[in-house]
Amino acid sequence: MTRSAQYLGDRTFAVAGTEPVPPGPGEVRVDVAYTGICGTDLHIAHGAMDHRVSVPAVIGHEMSGRIAELGPGVDGWTVGDHVTVMPLSWCGQCPACLAGHRHICHRLVFIGIDAPGAMQNTWTVPAAVLVRLPADLPLDRAALIEPTAVAVHDVRRSRLRAGEHAVVVGAGPVGLLIGKVAQATGAEVLVLELDPHRREVAAGLGLSTVDPAAVDVVRHVQDWTGGAGAAVAFEVSGSAGGVGTASDVLAVRGRLVVVAIHPKPREVDLHRVFWRELELLGVRVYDRADFEEAVRLVAAEEVPADRLISRVFPLEAATEAFTALESGGVVKVLIDCGGDA
Amino acid sequence: MTRSAQYLGDRTFAVAGTEPVPPGPGEVRVDVAYTGICGTDLHIAHGAMDHRVSVPAVIGHEMSGRIAELGPGVDGWTVGDHVTVMPLSWCGQCPACLAGHRHICHRLVFIGIDAPGAMQNTWTVPAAVLVRLPADLPLDRAALIEPTAVAVHDVRRSRLRAGEHAVVVGAGPVGLLIGKVAQATGAEVLVLELDPHRREVAAGLGLSTVDPAAVDVVRHVQDWTGGAGAAVAFEVSGSAGGVGTASDVLAVRGRLVVVAIHPKPREVDLHRVFWRELELLGVRVYDRADFEEAVRLVAAEEVPADRLISRVFPLEAATEAFTALESGGVVKVLIDCGGDA
Repeated sequence: MTRSAQYLGDRTFAVAGTEPVPPGPGEVRVDVAYTGICGTDLHIAHGAMDHRVSVPAVIGHEMSGRIAELGPGVDGWTVGDHVTVMPLSWCGQCPACLAGHRHICHRLVFIGIDAPGAMQNTWTVPAAVLVRLPADLPLDRAALIEPTAVAVHDVRRSRLRAGEHAVVVGAGPVGLLIGKVAQATGAEVLVLELDPHRREVAAGLGLSTVDPAAVDVVRHVQDWTGGAGAAVAFEVSGSAGGVGTASDVLAVRGRLVVVAIHPKPREVDLHRVFWRELELLGVRVYDRADFEEAVRLVAAEEVPADRLISRVFPLEAATEAFTALESGGVVKVLIDCGGDA
Repeated sequence: MTRSAQYLGDRTFAVAGTEPVPPGPGEVRVDVAYTGICGTDLHIAHGAMDHRVSVPAVIGHEMSGRIAELGPGVDGWTVGDHVTVMPLSWCGQCPACLAGHRHICHRLVFIGIDAPGAMQNTWTVPAAVLVRLPADLPLDRAALIEPTAVAVHDVRRSRLRAGEHAVVVGAGPVGLLIGKVAQATGAEVLVLELDPHRREVAAGLGLSTVDPAAVDVVRHVQDWTGGAGAAVAFEVSGSAGGVGTASDVLAVRGRLVVVAIHPKPREVDLHRVFWRELELLGVRVYDRADFEEAVRLVAAEEVPADRLISRVFPLEAATEAFTALESGGVVKVLIDCGGDA
């Protein structure tokens, strides 16, 4: 039997037993070890994405597991292989796909939102979405590869180079991962965060932090950069103030990466954009190269995934896992899906 | 005697006679043929930049002329050479200069605003700012090289390639020049302009135009681009609506070039920036390569400078020249500075 945590609406999940989905041609069935919960999952649980998700729904897309069964015509994979999933499915025919930007396909299917996700003990997916894991990488850590791929994509798109200065506005899970990935490129990194607990977590990971409510951030960054300003600012707070701060701290030709999702239009200081020839960059998910680099960074412990995992809940306690995430004081919350038992 | 049009404040200019400034070491004296009036000059005349300009002031920076006298130590130039001026002076020592972005020097001196300009019959400038003109290029057309260099810079920074689609929002002089420079790269160009006269001028220059008040612009651009959207949008209107339109028409990974100056923060649809991985680029003035390309484009008539010159006033009628520019119905207004007599 497949055991899945089904989202029923209104922040509630219940475990249901169903028949396993046999892998069709080109598909594999993966026994899911761990599934992480991200901000988008929380949005779904809050009902904010009910237009896109029909209940009961199995969500989740930050996962790790082992191949349990191969469908017909699957080459290059063996039962028992450790894998994660890059949860994107594209049409291959729209202008974005034809231009080579398949990860922002006009008809992108995000697996775990638009198609069943990983909060189940066994999960059938196209083999094309598999990403190979080193056999010795602990599977709980491997559940952090997907958000690390987000950070890799964001840093790569910023063109951050060794020796440059980068400011990260907001130290939630993605902000912390961006900070560590940016450090791994050899850049100098400063994290701005209002919440003392999050600052503490960031500092514990070896990131320099500043409380933007206590310090004149622009002056601080000026001093830190010898008067130049930062080469890159990552806006990960989702706040109007964060957008302002991110543009205020940038050097001439600085790059402002808009990581957080801002549902409503935000005021942007276009005069400063002009005066310093700033660049503002949208970023969305990742591509395979980002995922492979994320595997490398987590395996090499350049991204300390183990230290970002705050709590692990069993599948039966999915509702409590979501409650724990939104109560704060945690970084990543995982669900043990039992597929590694 | 030097005869100059001096800005006295409150939209008023008067011609004054002064002693010519002898060129010092490394300087040249240029007899000015023509000086164009741009939007920034108009701003100054309106008093909007009185904090930066102290009256009486000689302004103007879109010019052409002939070398009249060489100061000590000037090599490579001969009296009689036809020249224009790239009106920038940088410190060479600030972080922007050291990073190679001298045109956005932290202490940039814009000659014609922060230092005396070209609305005089003879003008002494550092030889370093001279740009050589072909001797057979009519000097009235050559006065349009500086705004053409702006357009070249904007198009170059957009990374527009042959075959791509570009939308220009606003058909003032800079919008028209951007349209023509974009066409010269081999791109498909569409100009959006509310004003019927400006649309007529654009069409006369061989640019496709649309009235954004009469047409569903987003659908129009979708149809024009086979559903993809435009690769590049140039925001040259300075309006809030223009910023919105420019982001709405863009394809996945589209580049929005903020050409117009927006003194106040503008709302930007950061959700669309995220969803399509858009890029928003600030642009400011130009560098020498832009100027040299502008000389080439004007000389080759790829930019039809002669057709953009609407009226020419003598130096004595500078006040009337400014009035003509702001009355509308004109593209470029030049002042005949008499230095070519």
